[in-house]
Amino acid sequence: MTPEKEKEKEKEQDQVVVDAGMKRYRNGEIWEFEDDLGVSDGDHGVLLGVDGGTTSTVCICMPMIPFSHSQLHSLPTLARAVAGCSNHNSVGDIAARETIEQVMADALSKCGSKRSSVRAVCLAVSGVNHPTDQQRILSWLRDIFPSHVRLYVLNDAVAALSSGTVGKLHGCVLISGTGSIAYGYTEDGKEARSAGAGPVLGDWGSAYGIAAKALTAVVRAYDGRGPSTMLASSILQKLGLSSAEEIIAWTYADPSWARIAALVPAVVICAEAGDEVANNILLESVQELASSVKAVVDRLGLCGQDGKSSFPLVMVGGVLTAHRGSWDIGKEVINCISKQFPGVIPIRPKVEPAVGAAWLAWNFIMKEYKELKNDEVNYERKM
Amino acid sequence: MTPEKEKEKEKEQDQVVVDAGMKRYRNGEIWEFEDDLGVSDGDHGVLLGVDGGTTSTVCICMPMIPFSHSQLHSLPTLARAVAGCSNHNSVGDIAARETIEQVMADALSKCGSKRSSVRAVCLAVSGVNHPTDQQRILSWLRDIFPSHVRLYVLNDAVAALSSGTVGKLHGCVLISGTGSIAYGYTEDGKEARSAGAGPVLGDWGSAYGIAAKALTAVVRAYDGRGPSTMLASSILQKLGLSSAEEIIAWTYADPSWARIAALVPAVVICAEAGDEVANNILLESVQELASSVKAVVDRLGLCGQDGKSSFPLVMVGGVLTAHRGSWDIGKEVINCISKQFPGVIPIRPKVEPAVGAAWLAWNFIMKEYKELKNDEVNYERKM
Repeated sequence: MTPEKEKEKEKEQDQVVVDAGMKRYRNGEIWEFEDDLGVSDGDHGVLLGVDGGTTSTVCICMPMIPFSHSQLHSLPTLARAVAGCSNHNSVGDIAARETIEQVMADALSKCGSKRSSVRAVCLAVSGVNHPTDQQRILSWLRDIFPSHVRLYVLNDAVAALSSGTVGKLHGCVLISGTGSIAYGYTEDGKEARSAGAGPVLGDWGSAYGIAAKALTAVVRAYDGRGPSTMLASSILQKLGLSSAEEIIAWTYADPSWARIAALVPAVVICAEAGDEVANNILLESVQELASSVKAVVDRLGLCGQDGKSSFPLVMVGGVLTAHRGSWDIGKEVINCISKQFPGVIPIRPKVEPAVGAAWLAWNFIMKEYKELKNDEVNYERKM
Repeated sequence: MTPEKEKEKEKEQDQVVVDAGMKRYRNGEIWEFEDDLGVSDGDHGVLLGVDGGTTSTVCICMPMIPFSHSQLHSLPTLARAVAGCSNHNSVGDIAARETIEQVMADALSKCGSKRSSVRAVCLAVSGVNHPTDQQRILSWLRDIFPSHVRLYVLNDAVAALSSGTVGKLHGCVLISGTGSIAYGYTEDGKEARSAGAGPVLGDWGSAYGIAAKALTAVVRAYDGRGPSTMLASSILQKLGLSSAEEIIAWTYADPSWARIAALVPAVVICAEAGDEVANNILLESVQELASSVKAVVDRLGLCGQDGKSSFPLVMVGGVLTAHRGSWDIGKEVINCISKQFPGVIPIRPKVEPAVGAAWLAWNFIMKEYKELKNDEVNYERKM
């Protein structure tokens, strides 16, 4: 056997060992790209942060550099991949799992990393409301990665909080996109949520809630139960309908929440133009959103015993961040909350929630290392 | 050929003629029972009244006896047949048509009548909101019956009104079952409706609306946004759930409106036991229902110029008619309307809407006969 051939055989054997290791975790085309990559070099490995939502799923890959927490925001993004919906309540478990696995593979493939290089995965996905949801997702996630990889499964609101607090789990996050939710954490690990129960259960501060109230106002104006409103002509024009009667058929023709939620800009424009009905709908949404934050802050005691302690309030989602004209829903919510909690520190994150998820992975793993080190130090002291 | 055989042949030929006539209108097993019936006798024929709803469809067959309108309520029911949903918005056009055809065939079969004996059909079906809905249904109904049969297609609210006014189209009907709607007619043929736009578009006076508000109140009490309420334990017990968190999954597991609407009795029981949250939900539903009646009465001027003219208000549906304890939603609605319109005459019909539909068929056809007779008289006078 020539030296070249021997080397090739050695390489092949290495490959078989690696492949066997991988195959134990998962087969399938998704991970075929790993076959073309060499053996991992001796770096510190990578982290994956996944933000899985009802509209889209984003995966961020970051290097696992062990430096101080204050530098966390300067961790570079090695790769970013995007896929569709991964809320198991919307698309079912199998499709959600497929989407999440694919988006992680895409991110790793883009930066030329293998699963064996991954140190930790933080999967923050909507629809995770119960420990049983967490356990179910953890069990199949465990099948994909080698056993040394740390895995964390959380609700997507936690990633949004982290995107504003640079990976620190403390404070409250208010999300208002198609749906709305307030989620809070204390430094000693207590958590609480408010709203986020969907349209049937009254998420009136969400884009869906605002738009459904506007559609209702048009129907009420038309049938004589409510005052006339600029919303009628504005919404009919936007939907290409000729009469308010047609709104009923339009509404029930497609059950998608996002389709109705997309009418919010029309409501804001009418309110800015002085329409009282539209203005009242927005004022009510502000009250709803503020009350969900208040409920979380009260339950967790985030404002301290005197009610004046400072705490971060991370604001995320189109309803709170999109403001082109004079009506700024996010600003009104902050005004409303500041009156009750003068210590509130509003934060509009500069990074997306998937980055927040990667930061969480970094924080979780560093905490584990520290605890391990402390245990070693304590062990050595005892000896 | 023996006389017996000749008679048989004559009969066969008759049958062929009748069959050919029928086959022109419709084939299929649904009408096979007609083959076993003899030639129609020389009576006045029959009427069909159909009440097609989202929950069930009822067909009533009545004899077409030409007597005065005041005796209409004593018209006997020859047959009654029941089938499932026939709202085309819920089950689609083909299934709705099949259900309606079957229920009419069942009613005719039960009283041994053929389609050739039918003088008129009044089809009052939910989901008929637009002249195009009427035209579409009329066109396939025309295929089923011989051309001499008079056909009338209306919204199911009209049959409910007729069930209280004995076939007279005058006054207002308020329906609150799973959904809610107010519908009104004037003697000169003007009509108006209010509400009836479904849950997304705010039918808060319906059973669905009341129950959705109750579920929301439980979630709000749980997450700290709302006051605590007896509804929590009452609804959790009824649904066999152990925590308010599980309500979210229960709500979205099945999109049926009727499933949520079925929680109304629990709300009434809590209100009767003194729960303020439940009581307020019922008070709001009363306001909603009264405002929908007010909108119709105002638009049609049913209360006259002085606001005191009398008009019938027909009350239909479980929310308005089911009252076992002290909280009577229907009575509260009447109290509320009486304050604004002292001339209101509340009517709780003793017969079902399908009978109202049959009465409408009788009235429509008698009106046509009268007009025809007047034309003949006028024609004779002119000659």
